[in-house]
Amino acid sequence: MDVVLIGAGNVATILGRLIKDAGHTVREVVSRNAQHAGQLATLLGTGFSTDLKSIYQNADIYIIAVADDAIGDIADTLKLEDSIVVHTSGAVPMPILEKVSKNYGILYPLQSLRKETLNIPVIPLLIDARNETTLLTIQSFAASISGKVSVVNDAQRLKLHVAAVVAANFSNHLYALTEEFCQKEHIRFDMLIPLIQEVALRLDDFSAKDVQTGPAIRNDQDTIQKHLQILNAHPEIKKIYEIFTESIISFYNK
Amino acid sequence: MDVVLIGAGNVATILGRLIKDAGHTVREVVSRNAQHAGQLATLLGTGFSTDLKSIYQNADIYIIAVADDAIGDIADTLKLEDSIVVHTSGAVPMPILEKVSKNYGILYPLQSLRKETLNIPVIPLLIDARNETTLLTIQSFAASISGKVSVVNDAQRLKLHVAAVVAANFSNHLYALTEEFCQKEHIRFDMLIPLIQEVALRLDDFSAKDVQTGPAIRNDQDTIQKHLQILNAHPEIKKIYEIFTESIISFYNK
Repeated sequence: MDVVLIGAGNVATILGRLIKDAGHTVREVVSRNAQHAGQLATLLGTGFSTDLKSIYQNADIYIIAVADDAIGDIADTLKLEDSIVVHTSGAVPMPILEKVSKNYGILYPLQSLRKETLNIPVIPLLIDARNETTLLTIQSFAASISGKVSVVNDAQRLKLHVAAVVAANFSNHLYALTEEFCQKEHIRFDMLIPLIQEVALRLDDFSAKDVQTGPAIRNDQDTIQKHLQILNAHPEIKKIYEIFTESIISFYNK
Repeated sequence: MDVVLIGAGNVATILGRLIKDAGHTVREVVSRNAQHAGQLATLLGTGFSTDLKSIYQNADIYIIAVADDAIGDIADTLKLEDSIVVHTSGAVPMPILEKVSKNYGILYPLQSLRKETLNIPVIPLLIDARNETTLLTIQSFAASISGKVSVVNDAQRLKLHVAAVVAANFSNHLYALTEEFCQKEHIRFDMLIPLIQEVALRLDDFSAKDVQTGPAIRNDQDTIQKHLQILNAHPEIKKIYEIFTESIISFYNK
């Protein structure tokens, strides 16, 4: 398929690489930032533009991969005929694209993407479309670049976005808090990384609730009290420790 | 080295496999549970016993790999001469072993171990000992079964244990809460697993604080409010969502 990428950030770059590797043709990269557009166009062996009004016509699919709050402006400017247009956001409703083309939809990569990544991880794609024909085209396009594709509507996509924030963003914050704790206490955070990764990798084989460990699930008050004493010097983590301990105890006593 | 394993659970089993694979000899498995002791002994090609009083003498190192609250009883019963004795707990102080032998120490695997694991993950070992000679022996033994060994005293080990609870147990609880949310909302939790794993794997290359994403770090109140509305039906997760959002905002505004 012939593709135009609007945006030149992390999502546009990773999708662009996958699209090219799958044998599609990126016809143009469009971004307000000429330097980023140029870099991505070079990477993909195509041209670039900073002006939506002179955009390449007749591509099969236009992918708007920009920050959530920039999608509206692009939707106001871009006018296509029959071509498919999608955005890549987890939180922005699909109808924002209704004036761009009659064939619009969603291609949301549920993954944390960084343009400099060498080995691109598995990228689940959540897709949707305004009509059946468009959905079939997006589905076959999505399946050509990812082995994990699911059709979800706006409401479900927003729920998966909440779930991603809780499971992934908040875990990352636990790692950040822990690393800061280790620095302040002069202990080695790197000794914890294999454990952290094992807990995440184990999701391939087990439900998290079946492999919970630690003092809270045992209601081991001796250890909990020892831990809280250490955390007196770290009130931010102490608060989180108390809330999780409570939450774990109540989760397994339901 | 000649080793005796006291305990036949997850830790004893995984350590036993590593010890055997490293070319040491497990002389005996001792456990109150004859069935578990027998299974592990068979796996390691050795004998077993349920009675500490008739324990094999003259091993180089005795490894007490049992639940924290069972270490004291074993320490009261077990009497060795010069042999080294270690326990494998992150939270129990080293002097609990002082009456067992004059050469005692710690061999704490900072990893979540399951006996049925096929591919044993990287297992950081936190070690300590009462005297220098014992420490050198434990260190070389630990290095023969793990590439990641660090000497830490009781206070540091307890701090690392707190850190492990926060980073690993609490992340796992976030996964469990998220999976339950997905079940109740009829969305696919498996679509989130690649993202969760990517966030953990990325610790190999980045500090968590440098790769935090999501609405909280952008202070994106639109998205946060949409998420909180969805979470009205899930008060347990809503509480955690609010606390993390606050914590992330304050962490990056320090």
